[in-house]
Amino acid sequence: MTDARISTADLAALLAIIFRRHGCSDIVAKTLADNMAAAERDGAHSHGVFRVAGNLGSLDSGWVDGRAVPTLEDVAPGVLRGDGHNGFSLPLLELARAPLMAKARQNGLAMLSVRNAHHFSAVWPDIEPFAREGFVALAMINSMSNVVPHGGRTRLYGTNPMGFAVPRDPDPIVFDQASSGWSNGDVQIARREGRALPPGIGVDRDGNPTTDPDAVLEGGALLPFGGHKGSSIAMMMEIMGAALAGGDYSWEIDWSRHPGAATPHGGQTYILIDPNRGNARNFAARIETLVEAIHAAGQQRLPGDRRYANRRINTAQGIPLPAETLNHLRALAEDR
Amino acid sequence: MTDARISTADLAALLAIIFRRHGCSDIVAKTLADNMAAAERDGAHSHGVFRVAGNLGSLDSGWVDGRAVPTLEDVAPGVLRGDGHNGFSLPLLELARAPLMAKARQNGLAMLSVRNAHHFSAVWPDIEPFAREGFVALAMINSMSNVVPHGGRTRLYGTNPMGFAVPRDPDPIVFDQASSGWSNGDVQIARREGRALPPGIGVDRDGNPTTDPDAVLEGGALLPFGGHKGSSIAMMMEIMGAALAGGDYSWEIDWSRHPGAATPHGGQTYILIDPNRGNARNFAARIETLVEAIHAAGQQRLPGDRRYANRRINTAQGIPLPAETLNHLRALAEDR
Repeated sequence: MTDARISTADLAALLAIIFRRHGCSDIVAKTLADNMAAAERDGAHSHGVFRVAGNLGSLDSGWVDGRAVPTLEDVAPGVLRGDGHNGFSLPLLELARAPLMAKARQNGLAMLSVRNAHHFSAVWPDIEPFAREGFVALAMINSMSNVVPHGGRTRLYGTNPMGFAVPRDPDPIVFDQASSGWSNGDVQIARREGRALPPGIGVDRDGNPTTDPDAVLEGGALLPFGGHKGSSIAMMMEIMGAALAGGDYSWEIDWSRHPGAATPHGGQTYILIDPNRGNARNFAARIETLVEAIHAAGQQRLPGDRRYANRRINTAQGIPLPAETLNHLRALAEDR
Repeated sequence: MTDARISTADLAALLAIIFRRHGCSDIVAKTLADNMAAAERDGAHSHGVFRVAGNLGSLDSGWVDGRAVPTLEDVAPGVLRGDGHNGFSLPLLELARAPLMAKARQNGLAMLSVRNAHHFSAVWPDIEPFAREGFVALAMINSMSNVVPHGGRTRLYGTNPMGFAVPRDPDPIVFDQASSGWSNGDVQIARREGRALPPGIGVDRDGNPTTDPDAVLEGGALLPFGGHKGSSIAMMMEIMGAALAGGDYSWEIDWSRHPGAATPHGGQTYILIDPNRGNARNFAARIETLVEAIHAAGQQRLPGDRRYANRRINTAQGIPLPAETLNHLRALAEDR
């Protein structure tokens, strides 16, 4: 199958048509489409056009409201509280960016807590823009129940990502990592390729350890990364993502009456820090010292480096997409 | 060897005498002693009287100043900046507690960044008191170079703990975990008992994986927990603990001219959040819902539970200490 190449702008425009045709308002469609095209451009395929189907499933089943208008409340000098009104999280985050940064500049740090919003996109695009504006940013998000707590037997936590972004020229240092050892998508790929899982990735429906991808995917569950420590971080994401924002825990999500729904209706908390307020030294210079030391210790690639490399190539040459995928997207855009 | 029992207050008084005799001011001696006695009371032996020798080594060698008077600056509505003036971190944190909580109440969240301070104590006693006052608290701390970054070959990061505390009656939920898979102390115990390490715990002096405790302890290093994800968290602790506060990175600590020194001269950042400011629901009730769900999923013990159980027993019956240890402490108290 040959790859086609498409510009980021053209891919975003195509995706926006699709989302509009499935019930999104213009602004929601554009926000989702820009985010998804950027993920595909950066080679983050798991959060690129691969996620069209899940988004459409949630829209078509009435699980998510593609026309929701998010609202923000200023609840404290350092805190914004957002309500997604059962829409996607991205439009709310875009609404909150400027006031959140203003609060962080004023107070030295600030927090945005979001409830009642579907976060189905990658975390790094949420926080990378804050780092480009000079802020250290932390994102804590819960999702949908798929992970067994350490020592437990049944699924509870979501794959609950944590993201962290730090200003740096020309590109910020950004990581974005699930609290599970593997993602569900990783396990699906192993099944497709007929590979056994390494030990410690998942359990079967009875809570027993297994290396069989089928057993994990059919009633089983994932395990946290790094044993009890990753499990504690998954718990922290529930508290920071859901409890702090007044949102739903991962296991409280019930989409049984919405066949095809795929987006988690959870909560998110973002913390922004102005790194030059509490610091007696030049923060940017100190980050360069850190990066040099990491390279000297033998770690060649920083978190985010691969995405930036893909971004440069694909911005210049167009994003490679299998011709079949592109044809499918074009059909979706004309379908209804 | 029979155990003696000693009350927490008597153990703290004994330890305070020792620290005063090794150059600490009254207030520093009392703060260190209370903290260490509380760790021993809670069964946290790795941070109890086991650490007397390391503290005395740092004091006797002139590496840490036991009479330092910490200072605080109010640098933003949400940010306090502390300078330990090469003393221990604990007295600075005690100085900062009340103003930091006042800022968090006022702003919804607040941050304390500390530089030039030796953090050689457990993290949970730093944050548990904040949770008892109703705050969600996060601690991020760097230490001394002992951990290889993922994909690297030489030591760089400290064991860099992260702590997280959440209000709950009667006792907060608190975790406190190193960014390495095992602590150095764990490896020392394995060596003493003649046990091989599991794979993934350490490397030898050439950066090659090893299961030999000797190879790890003699020029080798520890690995982060959970592969690249734990490594990213260790990096985050350097940035939040050291860079954000203007402190030293773990690998910048040079105590070569202070034989016997054992305390890391690093940085710490604490973030306090008022959980009732950004929340539309009752936070305490939501935490109870979480705890019930964790138990229902099969995880019996929450982070902190074992400490609280020990605390209840040892507060009632006295802290058990080997008679030899207690005699040694008494000799130290009378020695000089």
